Amino acid sequence: MNPVKVGLLGLGTVGGGTLNVLTRNAAEIARRVGRGIRITHAAAKAYDADSLLGLDQVEVCDDAFAVVDNPEVQIIVELIGGYSPAKELVLKAIENGKHVVTANKALIAMHGNEIFEAAQRKGVTVAFEAAVAGGIPIIKAVREGLAANRIEWLAGIINGTGNFILTEMRDKGRDFDDVLKEAQALGYAEADPTFDVEGIDAAHKLAILGSIAFGIPLQFDKTYTEGITRIERQDVEYANQFGYRIKHLGIARKTDKGVELRVHPTLIPERRLIANVDGVMNAVLVQGDAVGPTLYYGAGAGAEPTASAVVADIVDIVRALTTDPENRVPHLAFQPGELADLPILPMEQVETAYYLRIQVEDKPGVVARIAGILGEAGISIEAIQQKEPAEGESLVPLVMLSHRVVEGQMNQAIAQIEALDSVSGQVMRIRVEQLDA
Amino acid sequence: MNPVKVGLLGLGTVGGGTLNVLTRNAAEIARRVGRGIRITHAAAKAYDADSLLGLDQVEVCDDAFAVVDNPEVQIIVELIGGYSPAKELVLKAIENGKHVVTANKALIAMHGNEIFEAAQRKGVTVAFEAAVAGGIPIIKAVREGLAANRIEWLAGIINGTGNFILTEMRDKGRDFDDVLKEAQALGYAEADPTFDVEGIDAAHKLAILGSIAFGIPLQFDKTYTEGITRIERQDVEYANQFGYRIKHLGIARKTDKGVELRVHPTLIPERRLIANVDGVMNAVLVQGDAVGPTLYYGAGAGAEPTASAVVADIVDIVRALTTDPENRVPHLAFQPGELADLPILPMEQVETAYYLRIQVEDKPGVVARIAGILGEAGISIEAIQQKEPAEGESLVPLVMLSHRVVEGQMNQAIAQIEALDSVSGQVMRIRVEQLDA
Repeated sequence: MNPVKVGLLGLGTVGGGTLNVLTRNAAEIARRVGRGIRITHAAAKAYDADSLLGLDQVEVCDDAFAVVDNPEVQIIVELIGGYSPAKELVLKAIENGKHVVTANKALIAMHGNEIFEAAQRKGVTVAFEAAVAGGIPIIKAVREGLAANRIEWLAGIINGTGNFILTEMRDKGRDFDDVLKEAQALGYAEADPTFDVEGIDAAHKLAILGSIAFGIPLQFDKTYTEGITRIERQDVEYANQFGYRIKHLGIARKTDKGVELRVHPTLIPERRLIANVDGVMNAVLVQGDAVGPTLYYGAGAGAEPTASAVVADIVDIVRALTTDPENRVPHLAFQPGELADLPILPMEQVETAYYLRIQVEDKPGVVARIAGILGEAGISIEAIQQKEPAEGESLVPLVMLSHRVVEGQMNQAIAQIEALDSVSGQVMRIRVEQLDA
Repeated sequence: MNPVKVGLLGLGTVGGGTLNVLTRNAAEIARRVGRGIRITHAAAKAYDADSLLGLDQVEVCDDAFAVVDNPEVQIIVELIGGYSPAKELVLKAIENGKHVVTANKALIAMHGNEIFEAAQRKGVTVAFEAAVAGGIPIIKAVREGLAANRIEWLAGIINGTGNFILTEMRDKGRDFDDVLKEAQALGYAEADPTFDVEGIDAAHKLAILGSIAFGIPLQFDKTYTEGITRIERQDVEYANQFGYRIKHLGIARKTDKGVELRVHPTLIPERRLIANVDGVMNAVLVQGDAVGPTLYYGAGAGAEPTASAVVADIVDIVRALTTDPENRVPHLAFQPGELADLPILPMEQVETAYYLRIQVEDKPGVVARIAGILGEAGISIEAIQQKEPAEGESLVPLVMLSHRVVEGQMNQAIAQIEALDSVSGQVMRIRVEQLDA
């Protein structure tokens, strides 16, 4: 099949990220989709050409309406933001029979009802995964993954700036104003931080989440919105003493009387998983009647995380263009002819760090001999701990953490250690992973 | 459109859950899908009729092949488990041109390559969201939500039994054998717990996740598998002392040399979100090159969580039957004509608990007066804290947590408290939510 042609409105942070991800991962994405996806046209007033991949394949102009009117383009991606001319552009694209992808939460929260009605009339799709919680596929999870459920409530940390500020206030005992200034310096907060710290951005997203959870029209104007500017360091400390964390939550709940849509600082028990979502990360906890609680966590903003959601929406639209079986989501995610013949590594070749527990005799020189064996095998020790032997016990556990090493090498060292007279039984070995990005 | 007719193989735990969810939530699901989904035929040798909803609408027989051969049925849901006759039934359904939904991880991990090839030839879909991590839409997240990414690695707690055992060992300092017995009594572990505690069940799921993450064929036989039976209480304790938790992880990682597929106990830093996934819950952490780390959390087993995934798969198949715009995922999750006119509650009518911080004069009777105002308003106090005033300070913060109360009532009480002579400035009020299921 021919590549699908996409017109991109905006080449700023998210627009640039979208072009870069589509260019860099073009082969991987085509292996999944079964056809290419190409940004053929883009509109931008100004852009940083040096930071953009594949720009030579794109016809760039400064008139967004010209891209929307271009008959070659099948899908319009609106990444300009704001209400106008974003709204006019989206409505014009729909009128022209084009599908639309947008990351514009304000536009959807405020004008979504009107936009979706226009799209419905024209039989086109307006996709907006990137409008809520950046790269987390939360719209897909609620709309499709939990389609069997009556959603009872959801609660989300859906503004990274606010979560960064509250996390710093707690972890480092800092004041709100102080952290806000740092967030602005780091680029997490705008020069005018009102949208973030007063909860308006979160309320846009919550209005969208509440709507798809309960099947109600978008009602941003009825969403209760309270910011975090009044939270003092002492409140964060008192909350800790009570066993709670303060998070800026968006909460949507269906009750017998009606629907709650509210954004406000909230104390939540510190043992809840969502209470441990820190820094600029986002997370949404969704309670369904069949599935129970589920949680979705990831980056809520940033060029490439948001682009990840934009591109996923483009892929979904391409999948819905025909019902040919070969256009469906492939069983194993990639097209049958595109499965790779990569070797699966035998465990001996896998590299991890290790926790070792060795039962040793409590006498001089034993630790030195073991350390010597590890050293000769090129295995360095990160931490070591030896307890006093219990009364009447001659054996004592020697516990250590190693740095990363290939398993085959560790196996040899362990065999040598187990052969020592002063070591009893088998070495207990558990692998260690940092799981950092 | 006519309801879609579904044939259900198996009326055990998950089969019964699927029938119950589809029956109980029929209206909610139809509001989303735009047409009904009905289980019209089922096959089961024995079942507990009293626990099943809507059984009177289902033609039940004891011959699964008769259901698979029934020309009325469009989608077959295989919930018998095991390799045989599940495999023959699935292949026969495919041969008959029917779409298939299954929760059978062993079948997919072992025979998926063959089954998907047959489905591809016939142009039908075999969906298996419920095979991995129960109700968490993890297959959908990786296959669709993260379609823009090169997946770099993933790590999952994908066996609830093992996670329950390790959590109890840590939280309560118990021994493996002791907790295993309790898990069996609670129904979390089978009489023969080998599949769970030796990691075979997790390896089935990991083989599937690795395949859809990297686009490689299913290779269960090359998945390194190590159980948790050798973990001792002292290992859990030493890990804690080093700042780690022991989790039974399935890890899939793409390296320059090949793909790692491995299930084993793993020490992970206690501050990682996934280190705090406790009890029978599952979670999968996925690292994509564009999106960064994302995490998906929820119930990995149980009748209705698994049914949630089965029904989502059925809905997906129904959506792919035609490309009519009205058959797509609706913009707001529910069909445009099905949006509900529910009232959004004004904040005064919302009920939450409260954290209150009140600046009071440090003199007798003040706390009693405030408690009196709250008591008269029907607001009971859960915890209260008052610090000594700082040197030379006459004001001191009085901090308390209340039980749940309607906001309007709390507003009135706060107004009365703020009017007291012995109270200075505004009362700081933050809402408290338990976020429990």
